[in-house]
Amino acid sequence: MTRIGFIGLGSMGLPMAANLVAAGFDVRGFDMRPAAMDALGAAGGEGAGSAADAAADADALMLMVVNAAQARAALIQGGSLAALPKAAVVVLMATCPPAAAAALGAEVTASGRRFVDAPVSGGVVGARSASLTIMAAAPKADYDAVAPALAAMGSKVFHVGETPGQGATVKALNQLLCGVHLAAAAEALSLAKAMGVAPAVALEILGGSAAASWMLRDRGPRMLEDAPEVTSAVDIFVKDLGIVLEAGRDARAALPLAALAHQMFLSASGRGAGDRDDSQVIQSYDLLNRRN
Amino acid sequence: MTRIGFIGLGSMGLPMAANLVAAGFDVRGFDMRPAAMDALGAAGGEGAGSAADAAADADALMLMVVNAAQARAALIQGGSLAALPKAAVVVLMATCPPAAAAALGAEVTASGRRFVDAPVSGGVVGARSASLTIMAAAPKADYDAVAPALAAMGSKVFHVGETPGQGATVKALNQLLCGVHLAAAAEALSLAKAMGVAPAVALEILGGSAAASWMLRDRGPRMLEDAPEVTSAVDIFVKDLGIVLEAGRDARAALPLAALAHQMFLSASGRGAGDRDDSQVIQSYDLLNRRN
Repeated sequence: MTRIGFIGLGSMGLPMAANLVAAGFDVRGFDMRPAAMDALGAAGGEGAGSAADAAADADALMLMVVNAAQARAALIQGGSLAALPKAAVVVLMATCPPAAAAALGAEVTASGRRFVDAPVSGGVVGARSASLTIMAAAPKADYDAVAPALAAMGSKVFHVGETPGQGATVKALNQLLCGVHLAAAAEALSLAKAMGVAPAVALEILGGSAAASWMLRDRGPRMLEDAPEVTSAVDIFVKDLGIVLEAGRDARAALPLAALAHQMFLSASGRGAGDRDDSQVIQSYDLLNRRN
Repeated sequence: MTRIGFIGLGSMGLPMAANLVAAGFDVRGFDMRPAAMDALGAAGGEGAGSAADAAADADALMLMVVNAAQARAALIQGGSLAALPKAAVVVLMATCPPAAAAALGAEVTASGRRFVDAPVSGGVVGARSASLTIMAAAPKADYDAVAPALAAMGSKVFHVGETPGQGATVKALNQLLCGVHLAAAAEALSLAKAMGVAPAVALEILGGSAAASWMLRDRGPRMLEDAPEVTSAVDIFVKDLGIVLEAGRDARAALPLAALAHQMFLSASGRGAGDRDDSQVIQSYDLLNRRN
């Protein structure tokens, strides 16, 4: 497996495709923005004229688009599934609701191609440094076929199950915890400010105690800045916690903490902060308690 | 400062007092249970006949009782404040609402003694290994006076502010995050079970990703057991999240995630699981979604 088609060369997809090139794969990528394909070319890959063109002759087709609708559009309307050789594997890496990933998998396998549901965690930093966590679900043989390519993009690659949709489920669990931890850090640090405790002191203590979370340590310092660098936007969590709640709805499972955290991100997005760093969800608390 | 009175020799207080003895302090302790004083004696300390007896001639009086009401009872009704030398320092180490810690501090300083608000985090494990996190608030000179004794009980000792109540505030922030993280881990792992993903696999992935929290790694494995060892009980979080919400109420600050997490622990306690390991809050989710 050496020739890879790659659809979706955004802030995540471009460095992931470049890491495949660096690992020796022959990568032909497509994106709606010509500049993204130029950047792939500069990294040693090749730009494609269309989604179908990226898929022609590929052994595997990676999809790193924004959502399940875009993935389906690239496969069906964009013609990449029809253009893909019958022996090839479609690898869905975008964050999608589990039911949508499973449905897309059914369409792909009905066409005779194989399908791996393999969403990622780790953000732009992980994409650039090839240290993504990848949660792949597929029959073992299909997973094995693409495992070397996955290993070129991530340092923690897991085969989480045999059934497409299970990768998306683990990704949803991941986003549930990330989103709740982020909102909880904001709730605590906003309270620290309200009660007259220096939030930087609180952050140092909490980050080294049983109260610690990855999100608290990573986003906490940026919560104390007025206009921090955007490493991941508020609207990403509006989307991803929405997927979590959709997964819960489909499974008929109440997820009260995730639902509440979603409201705090929606509040931030609703006042126009959707493109700000997700640490700024703290302002939802500052405003809730009128201390902004 | 060499002579220390210690009131409250429970699962936390006894090993803390023993660590003071091990560090060379002369410790006289009091507890309602004679067996606890025998254990202190075996560790090289001395049992007192009453709270007042523990305070007489002491340079510092540590209070590691269950709550603010017990601390006040030991100081006032128990006569230990009146028995304490005027130059001594009262150190409140129990988890109390910030306003209650501040009020107790005002009573102590009105009597002419000094007061340090110094709650701890780290549980029985931290108490035994002298690795507690201690969050002390007091005028700097008073903090400095007891710092060597605090260092005998904790490995991370912080002077968080000059005003009694600020230590209790940081402890409340700590418990807010611990309680929410614990409930969030339960929400995620219960969903994993509901959606057919092996929770042990999910736990391995989530514990090494941006979804990680100290609580997920520590309590997650016990959430997958039916009757795990009790390291900290459900009712401790019923109490501590109650203190968090009382702090929020006094500060007129809405704390929606903490309030919701509290409900999940109350649900567990209400069905008779209050003395079970706090990881069993997962059953509140299993039952909420009828999968128990």
